[in-house]
Amino acid sequence: MVSQLSQAALRDQRSQFHPFTAITDLMAEGPTVMESGSGIHVRDVDGREYIDGMAGLWCVNLGYGRREITEAIARQSERLSFFHTFNGMSSDVVAECAEALLQRAPVPMSRVFFGASGSDANETQLKLVWYYNNLRGKPEKKKIIARWNAYHGSGVATASLTGLPGMHTLFDLPKGPILHVSAPYYYRKAPEGMTERAFSQQLAQELEDLIEREGADTIAAFFAEAVMGAGGLIPPPEGYFEAICPILKKHDILLVADEVVSGFGRLGTYWGSQTYGYEPDLITSAKGVTSGYFPMSVCYISPKVWDVIESEAGKAGLFGHGYTYSAHPVGAAAALAALKLIDELKVVDNVADVGPYMLQALRDRLGQHAHVGDIRGKGLMLGIELVHDRGTKEALPMANRTGRQVLKAAANRGLITRALGDTLVFAPPLVITRADADAIVDRFGAAVEDVLPG
Amino acid sequence: MVSQLSQAALRDQRSQFHPFTAITDLMAEGPTVMESGSGIHVRDVDGREYIDGMAGLWCVNLGYGRREITEAIARQSERLSFFHTFNGMSSDVVAECAEALLQRAPVPMSRVFFGASGSDANETQLKLVWYYNNLRGKPEKKKIIARWNAYHGSGVATASLTGLPGMHTLFDLPKGPILHVSAPYYYRKAPEGMTERAFSQQLAQELEDLIEREGADTIAAFFAEAVMGAGGLIPPPEGYFEAICPILKKHDILLVADEVVSGFGRLGTYWGSQTYGYEPDLITSAKGVTSGYFPMSVCYISPKVWDVIESEAGKAGLFGHGYTYSAHPVGAAAALAALKLIDELKVVDNVADVGPYMLQALRDRLGQHAHVGDIRGKGLMLGIELVHDRGTKEALPMANRTGRQVLKAAANRGLITRALGDTLVFAPPLVITRADADAIVDRFGAAVEDVLPG
Repeated sequence: MVSQLSQAALRDQRSQFHPFTAITDLMAEGPTVMESGSGIHVRDVDGREYIDGMAGLWCVNLGYGRREITEAIARQSERLSFFHTFNGMSSDVVAECAEALLQRAPVPMSRVFFGASGSDANETQLKLVWYYNNLRGKPEKKKIIARWNAYHGSGVATASLTGLPGMHTLFDLPKGPILHVSAPYYYRKAPEGMTERAFSQQLAQELEDLIEREGADTIAAFFAEAVMGAGGLIPPPEGYFEAICPILKKHDILLVADEVVSGFGRLGTYWGSQTYGYEPDLITSAKGVTSGYFPMSVCYISPKVWDVIESEAGKAGLFGHGYTYSAHPVGAAAALAALKLIDELKVVDNVADVGPYMLQALRDRLGQHAHVGDIRGKGLMLGIELVHDRGTKEALPMANRTGRQVLKAAANRGLITRALGDTLVFAPPLVITRADADAIVDRFGAAVEDVLPG
Repeated sequence: MVSQLSQAALRDQRSQFHPFTAITDLMAEGPTVMESGSGIHVRDVDGREYIDGMAGLWCVNLGYGRREITEAIARQSERLSFFHTFNGMSSDVVAECAEALLQRAPVPMSRVFFGASGSDANETQLKLVWYYNNLRGKPEKKKIIARWNAYHGSGVATASLTGLPGMHTLFDLPKGPILHVSAPYYYRKAPEGMTERAFSQQLAQELEDLIEREGADTIAAFFAEAVMGAGGLIPPPEGYFEAICPILKKHDILLVADEVVSGFGRLGTYWGSQTYGYEPDLITSAKGVTSGYFPMSVCYISPKVWDVIESEAGKAGLFGHGYTYSAHPVGAAAALAALKLIDELKVVDNVADVGPYMLQALRDRLGQHAHVGDIRGKGLMLGIELVHDRGTKEALPMANRTGRQVLKAAANRGLITRALGDTLVFAPPLVITRADADAIVDRFGAAVEDVLPG
């Protein structure tokens, strides 16, 4: 965005292969290089300050530079810089963290399994699902159902679960026994005039048809985010989980709740499953558990799954799975500090207040804009879908890259958003005030008008 | 090991699902819970101190509590607690780290791609290999060759690459286009009386036969650790890579060097590939890059691969792969501090000195023991294989779990080792002195004799 790239930008450009970046853009424009962060703001090496409307990548839920977390990290790093949990080893802070996490589960859970990212956690869940069905004598029950537009990670198997063609095509994915059903994408996929509830029924019917076609005895699990994140910021239509869950239960199919984004308060309840009222058998969490300060993921294992694993443990022997950074003590210290702050700052209540306020503010500001097709979301996970024609929902020409243009216009106005195609999304720190929300909406509204006047 | 479990141990036992642990052992004995670490020592919550002969999990290469690293972590965490590198974003410290890493590559490399674990890095490598062959118009060239006894990670695909049946059976692995060839396990797999060089030739022939059977135009890459780690501490026989590499080159098969354990000095050269004289097309590294203080992995991409990726970037569009914790700024700060220390402390030279010294000390102490079959390794990656009969190499009865008994005896003598079946291994911090090595050998020798007198 500047004609003269900084030394840091040049260094980055010639050294780093960037994730989820078009190399041609990076080569043409250079990277934007951040230097510092405080509260909801970050500052780049050229001295420009931004409100981070994405909390990093939906993760810096408590804002940047929280002293309670940075100090916990510093203390623990000095005290025990690393230890592992293989072969029955542990550390005091990991034990405390595991207990604190179980206490915060939405339904009674038996154990937590640690990792370092949402991707590795969903890899763990896949392996656990297969392991569980082998142990309980159902070796044929192995297929996994996920949804188009889902995002479940970037490993070979988790990118296969993910329902985004851009993450499949050039990587030969999906691989493995993975089936995809339709996204619960009411704005784009529901037939004209159909109610949300009727659309949910239709999606439930599609799921049930698939299960009957494949045979319930071949299907192990269903993976779902509460609100779809990277696949387009898609909240479920009314009655969706209510319609889906009984089908899973009837066919003895595990529900794996991917709460990597939604966990720890983002939707205005502690867990996404509580917003929509369903009971997961396995929960995947990450991001918010340390507010992004340290890579950590947590798989929750329900009594239903754990009881099989524990009772068959003699037969199974050594559990042959794990990561070096399963349960890093410094991550555990960061998580304990973050969990405490979530409680003390009443973060969940704040989201329940500011989330709907910000959604309404976006609608007030942009709801009548000719190129704004849909403004949607839950809590502090909000999306604005731009279109060519709001009447017909006709998309903008792909080649225009309008979403990216708005993202850049917003950056010029000191606001970071994220463009998923032409859907711009916000997932700001969960500690933003109503005034912060107003500032985001102001800057964003102006940026939309910079690119799409009237 | 104590009859009364500490509060922390009880908390851990009822809350955490441990990686690579037999649940029955954990339930019967409780975990060992660490509290602090300094230099090469760790201390548990019951006040017992140990020399950590495994540097955590082959990773705390600079020892515990190194102030230069903990301070870098503390400073960076305050300054910029998180940022990402999606969509052309970066941070100053990440740019600096990427450049510093490239400068340390064993052969000219074009770019680094960051992640948080060796597993996620090898998932990246698999995807890159397929991506590369799609971009250069070889969509059929996709099979991957790995070796039995290899360890390449715990994701679904990386555990498939891994050549350990205990990581396959109950998880329905391997999945995917993965082929395994024999481990270069001279002690166990070479025919009686065959030289190391002849065994290497035999393994090369097996590889070549496989390639011809499958068709070279279907095979994309060969993954190999320099010295096999978790699969039994197996250094390659003389002439192994010398025999293998020309075959790969001839058939246009990429060599992916898994340097997660061997990188950053462990074998007495900066990289394992330098010890054995081969040139990787892709390098996977992790662990030592931050000395285990922060989860970070680094994939190195050679010009051969990068040039294709960059030149086809316009066609490929957005690179659809990455992790939230690809290039965490705090990890980059930790890595920069660790890289500096590796240079300043002359760590590589130290390993080149103390490694052979410790190997000789182990041989002097245990080389004639009736139940010691083989003492092997390179640099500070050393293994002692226990057997029933050193003449016939007959194994000890599995049910005795002798390796585990020795591990526990060593712990009682204040030494942490690791049991891979009945092979006990050492991968101590790379900063140990000769006197430290003597202390390890003393304690270990006594522990072996505790379990296996004479």
